[in-house]
Amino acid sequence: MVQQAMSAATRAGATNEESLHFLETIFSTPDLGVLALESKCRRFCDHYTSIAPEDRLRFLTTLSKQYGVNQEAVVQVARSVVSAQEKGETLLLMTEERLRHTLIPQYQQLFSKIGRLEGGVKFLVDMRADILTHLPGVQSEEYKAHMRILQQTIRDLLALWFSVGFLHLQRITWQSPCDMVQKISQYEAVHPIRDMTDLKRRVGSYRRCFVFTHGSMPGEPVVVLHTALTGSISSSIHSILKTPTFSGRRPETDSSSDGDVEEKEELSKISAAIFYSITSTQKGLQGVDLGNYLIKTVVKELQNEFSGITQFSSLSPIPGFKTWLIIEINKALNLKDIGEHSEELLLLSEIEELKNFLGISEESVLKTVKDLIQTHAWIQNEQICDVIKKPLMRLCARYLHREKRRGFALNPVANFHLGNGAVLWRLNWKADMSIRGINQSCGMMVNYRYYLESTEENSRKYLENQVIQTTPDFLSILAVEHAV
Amino acid sequence: MVQQAMSAATRAGATNEESLHFLETIFSTPDLGVLALESKCRRFCDHYTSIAPEDRLRFLTTLSKQYGVNQEAVVQVARSVVSAQEKGETLLLMTEERLRHTLIPQYQQLFSKIGRLEGGVKFLVDMRADILTHLPGVQSEEYKAHMRILQQTIRDLLALWFSVGFLHLQRITWQSPCDMVQKISQYEAVHPIRDMTDLKRRVGSYRRCFVFTHGSMPGEPVVVLHTALTGSISSSIHSILKTPTFSGRRPETDSSSDGDVEEKEELSKISAAIFYSITSTQKGLQGVDLGNYLIKTVVKELQNEFSGITQFSSLSPIPGFKTWLIIEINKALNLKDIGEHSEELLLLSEIEELKNFLGISEESVLKTVKDLIQTHAWIQNEQICDVIKKPLMRLCARYLHREKRRGFALNPVANFHLGNGAVLWRLNWKADMSIRGINQSCGMMVNYRYYLESTEENSRKYLENQVIQTTPDFLSILAVEHAV
Amino acid sequence: MVQQAMSAATRAGATNEESLHFLETIFSTPDLGVLALESKCRRFCDHYTSIAPEDRLRFLTTLSKQYGVNQEAVVQVARSVVSAQEKGETLLLMTEERLRHTLIPQYQQLFSKIGRLEGGVKFLVDMRADILTHLPGVQSEEYKAHMRILQQTIRDLLALWFSVGFLHLQRITWQSPCDMVQKISQYEAVHPIRDMTDLKRRVGSYRRCFVFTHGSMPGEPVVVLHTALTGSISSSIHSILKTPTFSGRRPETDSSSDGDVEEKEELSKISAAIFYSITSTQKGLQGVDLGNYLIKTVVKELQNEFSGITQFSSLSPIPGFKTWLIIEINKALNLKDIGEHSEELLLLSEIEELKNFLGISEESVLKTVKDLIQTHAWIQNEQICDVIKKPLMRLCARYLHREKRRGFALNPVANFHLGNGAVLWRLNWKADMSIRGINQSCGMMVNYRYYLESTEENSRKYLENQVIQTTPDFLSILAVEHAV
Amino acid sequence: MVQQAMSAATRAGATNEESLHFLETIFSTPDLGVLALESKCRRFCDHYTSIAPEDRLRFLTTLSKQYGVNQEAVVQVARSVVSAQEKGETLLLMTEERLRHTLIPQYQQLFSKIGRLEGGVKFLVDMRADILTHLPGVQSEEYKAHMRILQQTIRDLLALWFSVGFLHLQRITWQSPCDMVQKISQYEAVHPIRDMTDLKRRVGSYRRCFVFTHGSMPGEPVVVLHTALTGSISSSIHSILKTPTFSGRRPETDSSSDGDVEEKEELSKISAAIFYSITSTQKGLQGVDLGNYLIKTVVKELQNEFSGITQFSSLSPIPGFKTWLIIEINKALNLKDIGEHSEELLLLSEIEELKNFLGISEESVLKTVKDLIQTHAWIQNEQICDVIKKPLMRLCARYLHREKRRGFALNPVANFHLGNGAVLWRLNWKADMSIRGINQSCGMMVNYRYYLESTEENSRKYLENQVIQTTPDFLSILAVEHAV
Repeated sequence: MVQQAMSAATRAGATNEESLHFLETIFSTPDLGVLALESKCRRFCDHYTSIAPEDRLRFLTTLSKQYGVNQEAVVQVARSVVSAQEKGETLLLMTEERLRHTLIPQYQQLFSKIGRLEGGVKFLVDMRADILTHLPGVQSEEYKAHMRILQQTIRDLLALWFSVGFLHLQRITWQSPCDMVQKISQYEAVHPIRDMTDLKRRVGSYRRCFVFTHGSMPGEPVVVLHTALTGSISSSIHSILKTPTFSGRRPETDSSSDGDVEEKEELSKISAAIFYSITSTQKGLQGVDLGNYLIKTVVKELQNEFSGITQFSSLSPIPGFKTWLIIEINKALNLKDIGEHSEELLLLSEIEELKNFLGISEESVLKTVKDLIQTHAWIQNEQICDVIKKPLMRLCARYLHREKRRGFALNPVANFHLGNGAVLWRLNWKADMSIRGINQSCGMMVNYRYYLESTEENSRKYLENQVIQTTPDFLSILAVEHAV
Repeated sequence: MVQQAMSAATRAGATNEESLHFLETIFSTPDLGVLALESKCRRFCDHYTSIAPEDRLRFLTTLSKQYGVNQEAVVQVARSVVSAQEKGETLLLMTEERLRHTLIPQYQQLFSKIGRLEGGVKFLVDMRADILTHLPGVQSEEYKAHMRILQQTIRDLLALWFSVGFLHLQRITWQSPCDMVQKISQYEAVHPIRDMTDLKRRVGSYRRCFVFTHGSMPGEPVVVLHTALTGSISSSIHSILKTPTFSGRRPETDSSSDGDVEEKEELSKISAAIFYSITSTQKGLQGVDLGNYLIKTVVKELQNEFSGITQFSSLSPIPGFKTWLIIEINKALNLKDIGEHSEELLLLSEIEELKNFLGISEESVLKTVKDLIQTHAWIQNEQICDVIKKPLMRLCARYLHREKRRGFALNPVANFHLGNGAVLWRLNWKADMSIRGINQSCGMMVNYRYYLESTEENSRKYLENQVIQTTPDFLSILAVEHAV
Repeated sequence: MVQQAMSAATRAGATNEESLHFLETIFSTPDLGVLALESKCRRFCDHYTSIAPEDRLRFLTTLSKQYGVNQEAVVQVARSVVSAQEKGETLLLMTEERLRHTLIPQYQQLFSKIGRLEGGVKFLVDMRADILTHLPGVQSEEYKAHMRILQQTIRDLLALWFSVGFLHLQRITWQSPCDMVQKISQYEAVHPIRDMTDLKRRVGSYRRCFVFTHGSMPGEPVVVLHTALTGSISSSIHSILKTPTFSGRRPETDSSSDGDVEEKEELSKISAAIFYSITSTQKGLQGVDLGNYLIKTVVKELQNEFSGITQFSSLSPIPGFKTWLIIEINKALNLKDIGEHSEELLLLSEIEELKNFLGISEESVLKTVKDLIQTHAWIQNEQICDVIKKPLMRLCARYLHREKRRGFALNPVANFHLGNGAVLWRLNWKADMSIRGINQSCGMMVNYRYYLESTEENSRKYLENQVIQTTPDFLSILAVEHAV
Repeated sequence: MVQQAMSAATRAGATNEESLHFLETIFSTPDLGVLALESKCRRFCDHYTSIAPEDRLRFLTTLSKQYGVNQEAVVQVARSVVSAQEKGETLLLMTEERLRHTLIPQYQQLFSKIGRLEGGVKFLVDMRADILTHLPGVQSEEYKAHMRILQQTIRDLLALWFSVGFLHLQRITWQSPCDMVQKISQYEAVHPIRDMTDLKRRVGSYRRCFVFTHGSMPGEPVVVLHTALTGSISSSIHSILKTPTFSGRRPETDSSSDGDVEEKEELSKISAAIFYSITSTQKGLQGVDLGNYLIKTVVKELQNEFSGITQFSSLSPIPGFKTWLIIEINKALNLKDIGEHSEELLLLSEIEELKNFLGISEESVLKTVKDLIQTHAWIQNEQICDVIKKPLMRLCARYLHREKRRGFALNPVANFHLGNGAVLWRLNWKADMSIRGINQSCGMMVNYRYYLESTEENSRKYLENQVIQTTPDFLSILAVEHAV
């Protein structure tokens, strides 16, 4: 096992010279023997682990720059390739082969061997997490380029090692090891788990909690997917989690799934599977597509278990909507201040209604709306809720459907599900009235629905042409904008 | 599961055009969606499997040539690299990155996705076995070069997937699944298993049968290592396998290990572990070093279980010795025929002794020795055995110690163990008097001993400088040659 | 573990005195401490095991007589009970309680503790097997009575320990431990297993081999039930076992179940479950009803797995038919010799047909039939087969349906299935043409069919009133007898 | 599964007539068929479960009286036995056999079949728990006698079914199923578990939590034993549980076992095993000796794992000491009130010291001590603690060593360990300063030490002659009493 603990006394030198010296001992010795190689890998891991987190960047940059590719050699072989072109394909192929080898960073060999150690894959996952954390802070463009290659080299290895064939699908229940269940609890980021009863329910009746584990990281759930089995597509997280809303109302329980752990599931009550939380636990596996695979694998699993399930859908949070909205309002207010005209955030009819209801001037409507949202005051009053519902839903639909980053949906959750081939299906008002939900998205949640027969095509259309599949109902929320 | 069976009706077209056409449909369509990609991979596997074995070469060469690397693109990017050299390291690195991608064969992407399918890794292992089988028969140098790259691409993927961390060590006993035990029996190539009792003994008391299995090829033993636990380093396979010798004598049983399946092992009788058979079952994994790892892993396992084991050694066959000897004798006889002088195979003292004992002329000694060996007549007569023992052992020692291929031991078993860091320890007379043993090596076997503290160094010396570690006793067999 | 092996030197004394002395040391010492008791139990087991099998009877009779119930004490307490009758129920109950305790044999306490030892239950099973083996040979009526109580005491304990809740149903497949599969092979008594391929088929596709194991006898199949999954109720064992008949004909394979191990089962082809072999492996569990439970448990298991199975039936051997028939013929011949008239075995029409066909006198028909059966000559000639078929089937039907022992079916297999509530359904000609089958029952086999909805009622009718449920078809074979 | 839930509508009639009627349908129908019997058992269980707990007594008494033993038949057969005495042993034995059967209560047959149902054993355990709960409240002596027989009948069955061979030893760790770990937490009665961290520690490093489970009650820990692995015999529960004392002081941590879950155990630090909590979870198994077996089994297990463990000891609570002490003080005060002389609870020297320290009259010392204890005031003041320590320890030692019930130790925990053969080894001051510990035993705990070589003998001496083995140190606490 790669050792984790290390006393201060043996803490690895973090100065540049020390790093350089250590790396030299690692890379300069020949490594033909299996055991020698293994012990060298182990030393590398131990050394790295013993460096204080804040000092690791220096080590990583040194590693990436000094023990990557030999630039001169590459240029030289590249020249050979160019000149081999005219001497027949066989020679060209052989020279290319040489070039390919020259282009392999020195550290790649080491990493592929580290993957063989017990705990080695986890070490690389964690080291890549460090790189991803530090990367944005690197100033030098050159260093950044080196670090990026280092990062990609590890990602390519991990992508091969985390192939689907190597991942094990595991259902987590109350009979699963405590250790695993506790980790599920700790990792849950979307809807934090409150207590033992809550935890027990999430792995109990009318629920399916699936994880991918990996042979080289035993006992570690790599991706976690929580699913609720219901009678229809859920429009509120409260019926699933049995949580009170912020305003203290008891959830309207979906009668078909009251989630009592001990309760026997009635097949006849189950016709929908709702993915209500998906979590990737390893930062170091960022960019290695696992969530998509987990969803597809779980769909197959559920179809096998329940022939009656005909609807698959997420019930997803909309992180970033409130932040985006406030920024947009600020922009609009600023433009107005300097007398410029912006695309209106609120429709005239909405402004009219708000003005009348709140008894304020038209001028201050936008500012007031901003205040209501920022202070959460809107949820305290049922009537304000009613008035503000339409503009908020419309703006949220716009955010999800129109706001883009490099052509793809700006909202990361939307981008994930749309990339998987899901349809932007329904926006749900008062779907998550926890403080968290109100803070993120004014209490709204969205269903991305998976129509199995068209998932593949939707996915391709989105990834190739950025086409977002949606529904007439969803579009109708937006339609009014156009109508105006 | 990659489908295996296929009716003649759906047998894949094996003409060049058909292969070309099929591959075009595979490689020309975009593959952004996960399911589309998966179904494409599956189609590829099904198609390939349906091609008759004899027609696969054509498909493979087409694949390797048409969907490998884009040569022109490589040359072009290679030029960019050369010219980027002067424009700063950042640009150089980015161009290099481009070059690296250009150098990835098109089919590699496909293969790495196939590895994700259930049964996909096994498919690649089998396809590579096909390539290795066909490769020697390819005439065109250019095609050969393409095929070699194809083969190496798969090997590199398999090497990553068959990293030690992904292999599971499993001890096989009479409690193991029948299916597994039967496979162990079928794969055993070194000392074929005769019947149920023999099989039961090989996984019973005073025996350890270990295998590596791999998550993506469940139920398949990838490498198999048979070990006997004895009181001293065995000098004969008969005491381990309880087999009668060819001449019908009962084996002198090693009292400390009579291998009765039900017998309770007495720790005090166990001080040596004898590796008497190691088998790699997958041709397609050739070049992926697994046997070495299995031996080292088993050594650790045995050290944990038996603190009393102090000696680790193989008891290995010497395939090829008899063939080599006959060729050498023929060469010598031919040279003599044309009056040339060869390095003498037999020492003068040996010739003298044989001449007198057999009552033949000095001239015909070598010819007679050849006949005795070829007809196995020497084993029929105890006295001939005694006379011929010395020259045969001397020549066998020479074969093991001096005969080389590219500097390394010619004998593949010797090369394997020496590469692992073992010592060429003892040559054993009448060690395997089965027909097989007599045919391969005139009944001799050899111990390669593993001194754990120096394995690493020995391995390095052998791999770097081709230094064969041996013992004074072993050398003394050869010494007499020099003395003369 | 109860020790099995014992050198001659330590062989337990088998004289009466030695047994007496040993038993005294066991029963006379107080046994309050847990460990002391455990060590005493162990000594008892070791002692008994070390007695040579032929000397055990003496030990057992001593044990049963000396350490059973204290007769005098019983009589005395019985007297107290009689006199307590008039002194109120409370006192009566208390005296009864005392009587109950007095009636517990001394050895019962020991046995119930032995059951706690590792291997202890198996020891008692084996000891009871010894008693059952020796019992018939005991001459003295008194000793016989003591031994019977000893035997029943153990049976009562075993009946409690082998309750269904403690038995584990296990399906045996080619993935099961070799050890278990080999035992299945060794125990198979009904249709002996020929080779590895045969064995593999019996646990393969379209077959279900289930066993009960018991926690205190790990790895030991206590009862074994072999089932074939077919399209209709099988009328021949050859289609199930793929065996050639004695006359060398290839079996007509039931197309729906050709039993290839690797073959995928097609649900649509499976509508019947045929129990073709059931074996109780432990003589010492005789009288503890396990086979019945296994059949019922397997029926439930199969119903869960295959909703399409609507027919459950045995395909059973008819051991004893040929022996019974020869005895009956001999009786008839003897009666004829002394001029007496017996119930005719053959009908007049049958005699006529046989006489004509064989060209013999009416007088010698019965004798000739006997010879044909004894020499198996009838099977050599297709035409004789045809002629003899009717009388043989009729007599076999009579044997199964009319021959009784204490009111129940004489044939033990019939008695077993009828007691379970099965129906005597169909007699099958040329159903088992192996030497064994011809020898036992002139090649006939019988189906006992389980109609699940009436099993319970049939069972009760048979056990209470000896009513055998059968079918019109079966009765029609017999009907002709009456008609004459 | 025996059904648990039952709607009010189907609630079983609880009147005497209804019970009588139901039982008649159960016991009057013949039960030859297996399925009929099974369904009858199930009906019985369902019926009983549906009776409201408070109404069960009536049902149980009816059952015990009406379907126990046929008194008249017993008396009659008892008479036959008496008269058979003179007619030879064989007849006597046969009549005895008849008597034995007549003495079996009718319900025993039913119960032994219920044991075969899934959930049936648990049903009987729970029913017996009901009987034990209700028994003390039964007024009629006759009914009491019947109920006692009912209870004993079930106990005898359970004793056979809960033989050690049927119990599975299982170590509980953080890798065990959550369900099991949660039960461990809920059942812990000796030292209640506070939170997740506490729970994790109790199954973590330097701890061994073992349970017995039983095949017929899957997932249910029948007995639980918590053990701490330490460097020496612990004198305080705080070092084991890391709990703060009532007075807020941090525990002096036993350096060799700080119980961090993740911490790797160092063998060299482990030389003692401390049993600090043992819990039987099933009231219905009262009288079936399981705890003793669990301790002995765990001792063997630990000896196998840790050859370095040389000391085995409990660290046990002393429930009842404070209650006993207050009663004794009250008795003394009462006697004093009426002028009688009692055996002095406090020694003169102690009275003197207390009087001086507290500044009170000699008369009021005893009363003040009582108040201090009842109000827990003594622990608030370090000096009072010091003064009161000697008398409290002396009285507690007296309580443990001298106070008896039917000759055996009055304290149930003492009685349990002494019966197991442990030695009353050391009394520990301030060993459990939790509120609970102070309330039970003024914060004291006691070690019962298991010397393996003499456990057996100690056990016998205690059980036979009520001899309590103790140590000179322990006796010295008492010695002073005698000296005075």
